Amino acid sequence: MIPPSTMNALILKHDGFAPVREGAAIDTLEPYLAYGALPVPKPGPGQVLIRVRMASVNPSDLYFIKGEYGQPRVKGQPAGFEGVGDVVGGHGLYARWLKGKRVAFVGGAGGSGAWAEYIVAPAATCVVVKPGMRDEDAAGHVVNPVTAWAMFDIVKESGSKSFVFTAAFSQLGKLMAGLARDNGYAMIAVIRKESQAQHLRDLGARHVLVSTDPDFDARFAALCKSETPRILLDAVAGQQSADLFMAMPNHARWIIYGRLATQAPSISEPGQFIFLDKKIEGFWLMKWFRQTSMIGKMRTLRQVQDRFIKGAWKTEVVATVRLGDAMEHLPAALRLGDGKVMIVP
Amino acid sequence: MIPPSTMNALILKHDGFAPVREGAAIDTLEPYLAYGALPVPKPGPGQVLIRVRMASVNPSDLYFIKGEYGQPRVKGQPAGFEGVGDVVGGHGLYARWLKGKRVAFVGGAGGSGAWAEYIVAPAATCVVVKPGMRDEDAAGHVVNPVTAWAMFDIVKESGSKSFVFTAAFSQLGKLMAGLARDNGYAMIAVIRKESQAQHLRDLGARHVLVSTDPDFDARFAALCKSETPRILLDAVAGQQSADLFMAMPNHARWIIYGRLATQAPSISEPGQFIFLDKKIEGFWLMKWFRQTSMIGKMRTLRQVQDRFIKGAWKTEVVATVRLGDAMEHLPAALRLGDGKVMIVP
Repeated sequence: MIPPSTMNALILKHDGFAPVREGAAIDTLEPYLAYGALPVPKPGPGQVLIRVRMASVNPSDLYFIKGEYGQPRVKGQPAGFEGVGDVVGGHGLYARWLKGKRVAFVGGAGGSGAWAEYIVAPAATCVVVKPGMRDEDAAGHVVNPVTAWAMFDIVKESGSKSFVFTAAFSQLGKLMAGLARDNGYAMIAVIRKESQAQHLRDLGARHVLVSTDPDFDARFAALCKSETPRILLDAVAGQQSADLFMAMPNHARWIIYGRLATQAPSISEPGQFIFLDKKIEGFWLMKWFRQTSMIGKMRTLRQVQDRFIKGAWKTEVVATVRLGDAMEHLPAALRLGDGKVMIVP
Repeated sequence: MIPPSTMNALILKHDGFAPVREGAAIDTLEPYLAYGALPVPKPGPGQVLIRVRMASVNPSDLYFIKGEYGQPRVKGQPAGFEGVGDVVGGHGLYARWLKGKRVAFVGGAGGSGAWAEYIVAPAATCVVVKPGMRDEDAAGHVVNPVTAWAMFDIVKESGSKSFVFTAAFSQLGKLMAGLARDNGYAMIAVIRKESQAQHLRDLGARHVLVSTDPDFDARFAALCKSETPRILLDAVAGQQSADLFMAMPNHARWIIYGRLATQAPSISEPGQFIFLDKKIEGFWLMKWFRQTSMIGKMRTLRQVQDRFIKGAWKTEVVATVRLGDAMEHLPAALRLGDGKVMIVP
């Protein structure tokens, strides 16, 4: 099949960063995106052209289109970081080997994006998807599952048999719950609504705390004693995260991988860095990709796919929106909550 | 010489921690210490009895007697973490070898302290002082100089050729200035008073910024560009420290080793942990002592002594107070500022 010369896409309206931070909530896409036609991008050296089957909508996509992500927008390019599709062209040996194969890919920031009919991505970041894996699982197969796997490696390497996870009803939190249970680790999940607790327990979280519970602090303090968690995996980076970190035992590490909160957290007891050997650091999947060996990446990706194929992980999709309907329907679909929204061309 | 059975000391009046934090400033010692007689302590296995020649007064001593240090006070024990003296008794092979020798020692928290005529300390923490070294240099020979050496090792291992140092007119800051210059590193010193700047430049700081200067932020931003410092060594842990850290380039590490500030710093851009790979951690000399090999410690201590003997480092003593006069004279001596206060029995 010869690709057409033009394609439809959700196109970024602005360059760079937003002057103010509002968070990921989106009522309308109009200020940020336009649906329209673009030339089909041409693969450069080491790149492949992929016909998109399905793209996922992650919180990082929403921060990005609003100009609140860690990478600048490029006006005129399609949005969308992640998806699954078929390789239809490309340059280089590996690209030619990939041709005709179904691949999961990560792209978008600064170039061609996934919320489009076609995307150009580096061949090296494409992952061939095993036949047993559904498109729904493959489309969100890299960002969340690989992040979960890499973060769980951090927990294992820390020597701690438990960890604290905030905003735990996210896709990532659900994936972590299963990994924790299956490997004998205690996940202490912090959520906002009691109604989410049972499902998260069913998925594998050993302890689920609701942040608005009046006994929250006392229950968390008791778990810090009984489970001695030393890793806090945190997508919020707000005051409650800081307070959890202060309440955790010595040698605790606060690992920030997202920033749902808009206010600045304050550190009530900086002496804990000195006398309790605590640390704050960050996690970013792009850094993990840069620093992990090719073999390490392949091993992780194979394990991630196998987990989906055998059903230990399953992507919970709440809505699938057509690319041409996204301007109208995506904001409402995102409000359905507690599951993933997909875009299909 | 047979030690007497009783001795004079400055004795802690309280156990544990203070309920509120005030900082290291002290108007009177009455609430915290009493001058009086105690039995001379008896060395246990692996310990030596030392007749104190001179003890130093560090900020950590002042935080400790006020109950604001990271270790609890023990009522009825002498205060004082550090000093120099002559070994007059002890148990074990190494202790017997030390007998009659002049040693620098660190002790105090939870046991026998240095603001006394005699102290019992673990033989393993005693450092034999070379004959060429003055008591004034030996008495403050471990806490500040070894901290300076160990922190400078952190800078060297980071690969950064410059570092930021707050509260830089401290003893520690002065020691760091010389180490930085002699090794070709750019120290960016932050101080509070313009009057301190020239002396610190003379000691070796390449850049000296006064925190109240209206151009402070712009000058610091320019230095972050020209010197790309990646290590912030900080005894303050207040809002200005946090703001310096946010202004520093990617991969910056904020290493907190003290807490002069009483308010909690807030982190304006937690996204920097993720996308700029920044980190916050602590430094504590006691941890360094526990984690460094015996050979590593011996090498560091020999280099520290040699630096004092050849005059590259010199302890600036502003007052020497007799143990029996300390209740009356120590607070005033501490207000003389900008140099070290010693206590002699």
